[in-house]
Amino acid sequence: MELLDHGNKSDLRNPDTAILIQFVKTVTSITEMGEISRAGKAEGKRIALVPTMGFLHEGHLSLIRAARKAGDVLVVSIFVNPAQFGPAEDLDSYPRNLDRDLKLCAGEGTDIVFNPAGGDIYPEGYSTWVEETDLSRGLCGAARPGHFRGVTTVVLKLFNIVGPNIAFFGRKDYQQFKVIEKMVRDLDLPVEIVGLPTVREPDGLAMSSRNSYLSNRERKEALCLRRALLQAREMLAAGETSAAAVRREMEKLIGREPDARIDYLEFRDPETLKPRETLRPGDLAAGAVFINRIRLIDNLLL
Amino acid sequence: MELLDHGNKSDLRNPDTAILIQFVKTVTSITEMGEISRAGKAEGKRIALVPTMGFLHEGHLSLIRAARKAGDVLVVSIFVNPAQFGPAEDLDSYPRNLDRDLKLCAGEGTDIVFNPAGGDIYPEGYSTWVEETDLSRGLCGAARPGHFRGVTTVVLKLFNIVGPNIAFFGRKDYQQFKVIEKMVRDLDLPVEIVGLPTVREPDGLAMSSRNSYLSNRERKEALCLRRALLQAREMLAAGETSAAAVRREMEKLIGREPDARIDYLEFRDPETLKPRETLRPGDLAAGAVFINRIRLIDNLLL
Repeated sequence: MELLDHGNKSDLRNPDTAILIQFVKTVTSITEMGEISRAGKAEGKRIALVPTMGFLHEGHLSLIRAARKAGDVLVVSIFVNPAQFGPAEDLDSYPRNLDRDLKLCAGEGTDIVFNPAGGDIYPEGYSTWVEETDLSRGLCGAARPGHFRGVTTVVLKLFNIVGPNIAFFGRKDYQQFKVIEKMVRDLDLPVEIVGLPTVREPDGLAMSSRNSYLSNRERKEALCLRRALLQAREMLAAGETSAAAVRREMEKLIGREPDARIDYLEFRDPETLKPRETLRPGDLAAGAVFINRIRLIDNLLL
Repeated sequence: MELLDHGNKSDLRNPDTAILIQFVKTVTSITEMGEISRAGKAEGKRIALVPTMGFLHEGHLSLIRAARKAGDVLVVSIFVNPAQFGPAEDLDSYPRNLDRDLKLCAGEGTDIVFNPAGGDIYPEGYSTWVEETDLSRGLCGAARPGHFRGVTTVVLKLFNIVGPNIAFFGRKDYQQFKVIEKMVRDLDLPVEIVGLPTVREPDGLAMSSRNSYLSNRERKEALCLRRALLQAREMLAAGETSAAAVRREMEKLIGREPDARIDYLEFRDPETLKPRETLRPGDLAAGAVFINRIRLIDNLLL
């Protein structure tokens, strides 16, 4: 496990040390990542994985901090997964800043950043896909055909390469989290899946790499989804249990923003993701809203 | 790894021992199988897996013998996988004889027979599938829609549960072998896949659990597929490179059997499984023939 011995890391990260040196090993080779992982496991080390598409924000960092506590070897993967983008989506313009990401990972005590090339993850002639066919229907699955097939496939590949004992996901992507949980259960994968709460800006906007696309005006309008979800919670608390009635009020609220267009606003059972017509406390309210061409999602348990 | 210490097995299996005691541990629980596997790996043991649908014949036993040499812990799985049978196929009548299988496994020094229940492999609400979308098209994939999706899904599950370092498959199911190889490569599974030659009856019939369905008369007719494949090899050796011309002669030969009906007879590149119109030495000739309602397959590299 020589590759993981970067000298005495805890000393280097001690705030009392005069010069704070932070560094992180970057691995791009699938083979090397597998070897490091197997060597770690052979030593009885516990591997924690945080799969990301990079352009890290406080939401990712909350996952990385939890993973740091949960594992002996902390791997953060950074891979903008082409298979989960539709042909008309923002794969090419998806924000990237690897240098900044590496510094942030180092600052949280990450052992390895796994940053494979697209052509290594999906070599020519690639032809094997993993599909969850129940929870991935509807919501973002209806709005983005093939999206979850791309997500489950890349997450399974990352699990096979990195071999984590535990992996961390954000609940901002609530449906993704439930789909991955289901895949892990169905395929008998020996990985513990942890979902952590959405991290928000001070005004309540869910952190997202895509927020970087927003102009000042769009940034203000983007809050409408969060406000609509909070309004749904208030209406249910006040006794309104009709999903249709609550949705109408949410639509009105979002409709006031000139650049906002609803992709979906739905109420679901938080475990089965089955649609709800009559709302109950604990139900999932989930929405996707376009602010001009920028698609943002958020959700709330009512 | 207490579960694997069945006393001094090599003594027990010594043919000079007056009383030959042969036994094998049967595991039905997915959780227990996973624990045994992880315990073995933690001790640095190499796990070899032979996935089967039971009703073992010499073809399976050749895999089991090779696996015995390749691993420290030899696991044979016996599971008649409903997901790889079509609705009109022979799932219910598929031959089963667990007692006999256990004796055969014990006789070959198997450590564990993993024999899970269908409801544990596919619990209610099961919804995750693995699909290879290139090599699994055509041949048996065209004749049996969904078949390979069922095969890849159960094989991935068995790999996740048993965690083998190496797994053995027969080349009688040539397409299945190539599809599994491809899945393993595409999904970055840390498993070595070995394909072993078809084992045949003295007259050349490929061993198959489904041969047990054949009446005496059908048993004789069943040889026609093997004869047709050998004829294709002879024709190519004699200079005939037209796949269509060779197929016509094969059809004539099989057409002479009153109870035989061709499902497919095809020539393919042995690696990509792309169809061949002009034959070359080394090409795959593969066929499926119904003898009345019994479907048999065989293949040959020309």
